[in-house]
Amino acid sequence: MAYSSLYFGIFFLVLFHSCYAQIGMVTNPSDHQQPQHRLSRQSQCQLHNLNALQPKHRFRSEAGETEFWDQNEQQFQCAGVAFLRHKIQRRGLLLPSFTNAPTLMYIVQGEGIQGAVFPGCAETFQSPSQQSQHRSDHRQHESFPDQHQKIRKFKEGDVIALPAGVSHWIYNNGQSQLVLVALVDVGSNDNQLDENFRKFFLAGNPQEGLVRGGQRQDQSQRQSRSYRGRHQEEEESQHQESDGNNLLSGFDENLLAEVFNIDTRLARKLQNERDNRGAIVRMEHEIQSPEEAEEEQREQGSQEEEEEEDERSEEERRRERRRSRGERGSRNGLEETFCTMRLKHRTDSSFADIFNPRGGRITTVNGFNLPILNALQLSAERGVLYNNAIYAPHWNINAHSIVYITRGNGRIQIVSENGEAIFDERVQEGQVITVPQNHAVLKKAGRQGFEWIAFKTNANAKITQLAGRVSVLRGLPVDVLANSFGISQEEATKLKQNRQEVSVFSPRRGSQE
Amino acid sequence: MAYSSLYFGIFFLVLFHSCYAQIGMVTNPSDHQQPQHRLSRQSQCQLHNLNALQPKHRFRSEAGETEFWDQNEQQFQCAGVAFLRHKIQRRGLLLPSFTNAPTLMYIVQGEGIQGAVFPGCAETFQSPSQQSQHRSDHRQHESFPDQHQKIRKFKEGDVIALPAGVSHWIYNNGQSQLVLVALVDVGSNDNQLDENFRKFFLAGNPQEGLVRGGQRQDQSQRQSRSYRGRHQEEEESQHQESDGNNLLSGFDENLLAEVFNIDTRLARKLQNERDNRGAIVRMEHEIQSPEEAEEEQREQGSQEEEEEEDERSEEERRRERRRSRGERGSRNGLEETFCTMRLKHRTDSSFADIFNPRGGRITTVNGFNLPILNALQLSAERGVLYNNAIYAPHWNINAHSIVYITRGNGRIQIVSENGEAIFDERVQEGQVITVPQNHAVLKKAGRQGFEWIAFKTNANAKITQLAGRVSVLRGLPVDVLANSFGISQEEATKLKQNRQEVSVFSPRRGSQE
Amino acid sequence: MAYSSLYFGIFFLVLFHSCYAQIGMVTNPSDHQQPQHRLSRQSQCQLHNLNALQPKHRFRSEAGETEFWDQNEQQFQCAGVAFLRHKIQRRGLLLPSFTNAPTLMYIVQGEGIQGAVFPGCAETFQSPSQQSQHRSDHRQHESFPDQHQKIRKFKEGDVIALPAGVSHWIYNNGQSQLVLVALVDVGSNDNQLDENFRKFFLAGNPQEGLVRGGQRQDQSQRQSRSYRGRHQEEEESQHQESDGNNLLSGFDENLLAEVFNIDTRLARKLQNERDNRGAIVRMEHEIQSPEEAEEEQREQGSQEEEEEEDERSEEERRRERRRSRGERGSRNGLEETFCTMRLKHRTDSSFADIFNPRGGRITTVNGFNLPILNALQLSAERGVLYNNAIYAPHWNINAHSIVYITRGNGRIQIVSENGEAIFDERVQEGQVITVPQNHAVLKKAGRQGFEWIAFKTNANAKITQLAGRVSVLRGLPVDVLANSFGISQEEATKLKQNRQEVSVFSPRRGSQE
Repeated sequence: MAYSSLYFGIFFLVLFHSCYAQIGMVTNPSDHQQPQHRLSRQSQCQLHNLNALQPKHRFRSEAGETEFWDQNEQQFQCAGVAFLRHKIQRRGLLLPSFTNAPTLMYIVQGEGIQGAVFPGCAETFQSPSQQSQHRSDHRQHESFPDQHQKIRKFKEGDVIALPAGVSHWIYNNGQSQLVLVALVDVGSNDNQLDENFRKFFLAGNPQEGLVRGGQRQDQSQRQSRSYRGRHQEEEESQHQESDGNNLLSGFDENLLAEVFNIDTRLARKLQNERDNRGAIVRMEHEIQSPEEAEEEQREQGSQEEEEEEDERSEEERRRERRRSRGERGSRNGLEETFCTMRLKHRTDSSFADIFNPRGGRITTVNGFNLPILNALQLSAERGVLYNNAIYAPHWNINAHSIVYITRGNGRIQIVSENGEAIFDERVQEGQVITVPQNHAVLKKAGRQGFEWIAFKTNANAKITQLAGRVSVLRGLPVDVLANSFGISQEEATKLKQNRQEVSVFSPRRGSQE
Repeated sequence: MAYSSLYFGIFFLVLFHSCYAQIGMVTNPSDHQQPQHRLSRQSQCQLHNLNALQPKHRFRSEAGETEFWDQNEQQFQCAGVAFLRHKIQRRGLLLPSFTNAPTLMYIVQGEGIQGAVFPGCAETFQSPSQQSQHRSDHRQHESFPDQHQKIRKFKEGDVIALPAGVSHWIYNNGQSQLVLVALVDVGSNDNQLDENFRKFFLAGNPQEGLVRGGQRQDQSQRQSRSYRGRHQEEEESQHQESDGNNLLSGFDENLLAEVFNIDTRLARKLQNERDNRGAIVRMEHEIQSPEEAEEEQREQGSQEEEEEEDERSEEERRRERRRSRGERGSRNGLEETFCTMRLKHRTDSSFADIFNPRGGRITTVNGFNLPILNALQLSAERGVLYNNAIYAPHWNINAHSIVYITRGNGRIQIVSENGEAIFDERVQEGQVITVPQNHAVLKKAGRQGFEWIAFKTNANAKITQLAGRVSVLRGLPVDVLANSFGISQEEATKLKQNRQEVSVFSPRRGSQE
Repeated sequence: MAYSSLYFGIFFLVLFHSCYAQIGMVTNPSDHQQPQHRLSRQSQCQLHNLNALQPKHRFRSEAGETEFWDQNEQQFQCAGVAFLRHKIQRRGLLLPSFTNAPTLMYIVQGEGIQGAVFPGCAETFQSPSQQSQHRSDHRQHESFPDQHQKIRKFKEGDVIALPAGVSHWIYNNGQSQLVLVALVDVGSNDNQLDENFRKFFLAGNPQEGLVRGGQRQDQSQRQSRSYRGRHQEEEESQHQESDGNNLLSGFDENLLAEVFNIDTRLARKLQNERDNRGAIVRMEHEIQSPEEAEEEQREQGSQEEEEEEDERSEEERRRERRRSRGERGSRNGLEETFCTMRLKHRTDSSFADIFNPRGGRITTVNGFNLPILNALQLSAERGVLYNNAIYAPHWNINAHSIVYITRGNGRIQIVSENGEAIFDERVQEGQVITVPQNHAVLKKAGRQGFEWIAFKTNANAKITQLAGRVSVLRGLPVDVLANSFGISQEEATKLKQNRQEVSVFSPRRGSQE
């Protein structure tokens, strides 16, 4: 560790100096000049001065771009998470890939379809015939209608869960750009590697920085790579040709040919060496979601998309009934029901858990309404505050809360154990701020209102409010309150009684921020 | 890390040089001159020379004092715990606060009442009318009788559990000083921050060192704070006035006023800026426990306090019956029963699990008799040895054991994997010694007897004894024993048979320590 | 940390320069000259260049030897495991001992019996009378027939599980040498000490390096020990006499005598100070397994050893029935059934889970067929490939896989997230290679076939295959595949369809490695 700081300084200059051309990494000007050492979740949570963060690394692809927040930021180090945003253009496909940690996504804008591939689950979907669009051999397709695993539709406001190591792809079949943000819980026990973000692509040739979430490579690679890194600066396209970055590109092409029982020429194609489309590629023709296919089949345009809403399969309901009869823990090894598990929950107004017509609404997505989160140990909170409204000050009992602002702006104050505000800023759309476990937080909307999605590092994250009808002060005797604050009993009673709303507070007349 | 040692040396001199006046931190003379680096539970357990420890930091308050053992001690670093002691004077109130990790307390002396406030639980207690004592507006109180969450009574010998992030207060309503020791399991998974102890006060203005368990502030604060730290040395009282250390003091006073719907003057009072009473304040008048109130009401002095013993509510019993019908795992989202959960278990002689009239007794408090410990992953063992008696040598299979001596003295030997005694000392009342997992330990009482409370880092900590009727040697065939030790089969048989007592051994005639 | 590198360099030279005589530590020539720092599982998994590893430290004993792989190797640091091999000669006894972490063993060769001693379990076995062989007092044995805990028989191909902190002994009662390899999951939560391997012996005087798995001692011991270390070089035998290394040798001999109610002379014998037999000692006479005893009793040689196969006791079956009625989680505190838990599973061909007559077979030992593994969070996979056959390329979703080659040789390729082969070598019998979580791996047998045992760090480790009938590519729509790889739909269809075998692929005609 002694000389590593020195080495790292040099390495840092070399690696991050690079500037990608068409498909490349763009480093924001807010970069820290001084490198930070990686420490595990447990070793560093000294947060004295938090900042609202913008993404640091951007990777452009043929049909979209991927942005990473800086994993070395103290707030992410403390929470043990990585944060990223995909922008996928119309007809763009995020290549099949998996991550080394549980992931929770939120669809900020647009709509699309997702295919997650669970090992051991059957290919239960058939693709609608698309032979008219094919350039190639028709006989083959007639004899083998294409079968694959379940495809899931999603749209703006959905929360999507994905376990570590499970591969998936995303396709934008909507009319606008698709924007999604994702929290990757690299500190999860499900990630047995170190706390670096790692994305494993099954196909394509994404940029090398992208598979590491924009992170520098580690010490041991420094010397051999730094030269290459310097060349990347000018020879970006050449790098892209030099070798593939997908999982198959590391295998011997002859072995690949034998494994797949194909010829070596096709095996070499799988390694995508000269592919420079990046992680998001343009589909040559549309993939239809099951609903669209069905619609086309019936030639009935009246079917409501919302019917798809109740994605809870018969299996899931049966499982819940069984569970209520106390059979929950009884695994029988036939875990096929896992294959039909719901991965998605909506957060729009009809799903609100707390609603105040003068203040706004809160929707919670947790292990109770999206059971897969019990395995992932993550949950989410969607907040919408109307102009000048307030989300009751509170602390998270058992989780960190990583907040992404989706619309509007507002003021956030975060207070640490020694009574100091470690954050007190006006935040706005596109920024991320971490509220550490047990720290008190207060959110007040600006004039245009304030909306956010908060990802929490616990399947059933709990908060305790400091004010309002369900607050901790309500639970304390007036005598204790009066003596603790050194105020009169009358004043203590006011503290307990004056604010009768639950969690979302309407603004006081004349209040403004 | 390279230059951090140097910086730290300077920092250390500056920060710990301070000396609090009336309400301040007293650093014991046994301080280590050389700073120690913090390492996570997993990275450092090289314990070659343990010491029995006294508290290192003392913080005086208006109505009591709080002492912290040094978190940087290797034995606490290895076990991932912090240890502290509160001494609360008669009519003293430990201010409402919560900690970033599960806590297990033991009442060494005295009695009192505790109020833990769980979010989502109803205000099920009404305070008995005390209007005659009030100085302020009576109408208000008549219209709003004070309601709050459950209050629990406790006394000497009780073990009390408290989850991470749950706030509570303690009030000494007894006739003598109340003394309690607490283990804080900062290495628990429930603490997602780093392994530093953190106490968050809802009210008051406790010393800044107290909210961190006496720990130095971290590196990043060094430069900005060290100057302040140097000033603290002389300007202690000024510091106390400069800003508040409770959770509300970090918020903007105008926002606070709006949030609580109170005027700004009262909001400012909540921040307790000029409060110098510390963490334990004197109550102006008594808080009655429910029993006292009931007693007063009935005017019957004959009600036995022990009836309160069976605190197990009807809900808990119903829950256990359901569990025995196999419904245990079935959560239905209606977790209100959590609100009635028992937090306390007695350890006096009527609760003993092992008893030897010539040796002493052992009482175990674990997940079986105090179910909340299954969530906290902590347990406790209360030991009482009569003069010269011996607690069978054993090792902890799945836990560390942090032992606080409550009375008398005795000799403790602890042996590591290479057969060396890493501890062999006579310990006495008020000392703490950690027995690391898997290390063998032997306790022998002195002439006045020997009593302790051991906190263990597992909800169902198990031991294996080396001698006695349930020992590991009993489980080995005589042939294996004889060949392993290179002794005769007759000798091996003696090893297995000569000591027929279970865990607490009576002394041999003439044996003395 | 700054000067520790320097100190360590010196220390390293001193300590590892030693060279044991008859019973000693042999350091392989492949030693790294540069010391490596220990880092926790979460802090370092930068694996760019894996190596197939041979054991590094060898400790010879009277009746066998113990070899340790280097815990400082990056691949073991990342996986958080230690790896070792015991070779036990005929009539050799591995002394009673326990380890600080869950252990999974595989019997590479030979057969033997094992006695695990669980605290709280009854002594349910009686040893067959052996008085004719005894040299000592017969009366004693007539009055006390020897009772002890259950003894378990095992043989080549068995997987044996052992929880952390539970002591056991192993005896080779077969006709040949007994060879077993073991994975010790030091990164498990069950190990609350640091991630160093620690073995605690109840008896005997094994080498000091052996109880630490060959690891160097830590910094704080350096100065005091390094001198001694230097002397060890020449005075090996003297060291062995100087003090004992078992758990009893650290206690005061007078206390020991009192505890066991024996005389001090015998107590001193228990400390085995002058014992130089090491960890594996020769038994003076055979221990019979229950089957042998029974056989002798009946004088019927026809009883099939395989009847012992179904070790699943009536209790276990009853427990499973209860579980299927949904009562699984209902612990009642009467955990005696734990005492009858099965610790062993066979992996020979009759237990195969996947079988291809032209390719080979795979046997999985996990929480479903060996329930104790659910507590240990470990599992195993036994693989047998015929000549030139291939194990489908795949990644481990939720576990590391530590592979020990038991027979033959083969080629293994391992690919990381950036598409690079971090391992591509021909491996052979006796080597260990770690396949990190999520990394893709391909195994192809050589001409003589290829056999291995893979230990996995999850009770129910799952893989996703890249090729074959249950592969991830099968789960993807042809359109997604075609666009991702930039190939035609016809080619994509070939990828999905051409290899119809499940996991073990037969070689292509003419294929050779």
